[in-house]
Amino acid sequence: MDCIFCKIASGSIPVDIVYSDKDLIAFRDIHPQAPVHDVIIPRKHIESVNDLNTSTKELAGKMLLVAKLVARKEGVAERGYRLSINCGPDGTQIVPHIHIHLLGGRMLTNELG
Amino acid sequence: MDCIFCKIASGSIPVDIVYSDKDLIAFRDIHPQAPVHDVIIPRKHIESVNDLNTSTKELAGKMLLVAKLVARKEGVAERGYRLSINCGPDGTQIVPHIHIHLLGGRMLTNELG
Repeated sequence: MDCIFCKIASGSIPVDIVYSDKDLIAFRDIHPQAPVHDVIIPRKHIESVNDLNTSTKELAGKMLLVAKLVARKEGVAERGYRLSINCGPDGTQIVPHIHIHLLGGRMLTNELG
Repeated sequence: MDCIFCKIASGSIPVDIVYSDKDLIAFRDIHPQAPVHDVIIPRKHIESVNDLNTSTKELAGKMLLVAKLVARKEGVAERGYRLSINCGPDGTQIVPHIHIHLLGGRMLTNELG
């Protein structure tokens, strides 16, 4: 498996981990766009939102619940944050393993991309 | 209930509906930031990501699955798109009813906010 996020999930590429459980892992983005910029991924390799289905619906929901936990852990839950999921070329998805970007720690712009 | 998205869900404010089922509704944003800009909301009033919990985890997952369907319906699934969820002041959340923005139809910028 040549997926960088699978390697992060398995521990073979070290990252700054913010949250980890049997299904998901969250870590700090190495090119942060805001004071808080974390990435939440499932351990299971799912390429993108286009590959979600009823069997992974609960896992998708858990990704959002873990995003909530990560926001709290990073101290941005009350002031606010943005979750973004890039999908495919126009969405500027770089790593083909579904992930949520969590940005916070400053007033974000109104521009969604 | 004075929530504009609850009024949209109940049909008392007309919008350009893209998708609708018993749990969720998707409609075109009236101030689009891209050729395709839709908003996906649950019919149930949940204020933000901070208010998700285990009882609404499945609904949260379904929001992402419906986003996938909406992307396909709008013809942007293959070229790509971005999903964004604003939460709280720093996240520029305007309407306090959880919603996913879906942007596509052009190459989006790398800036997530």
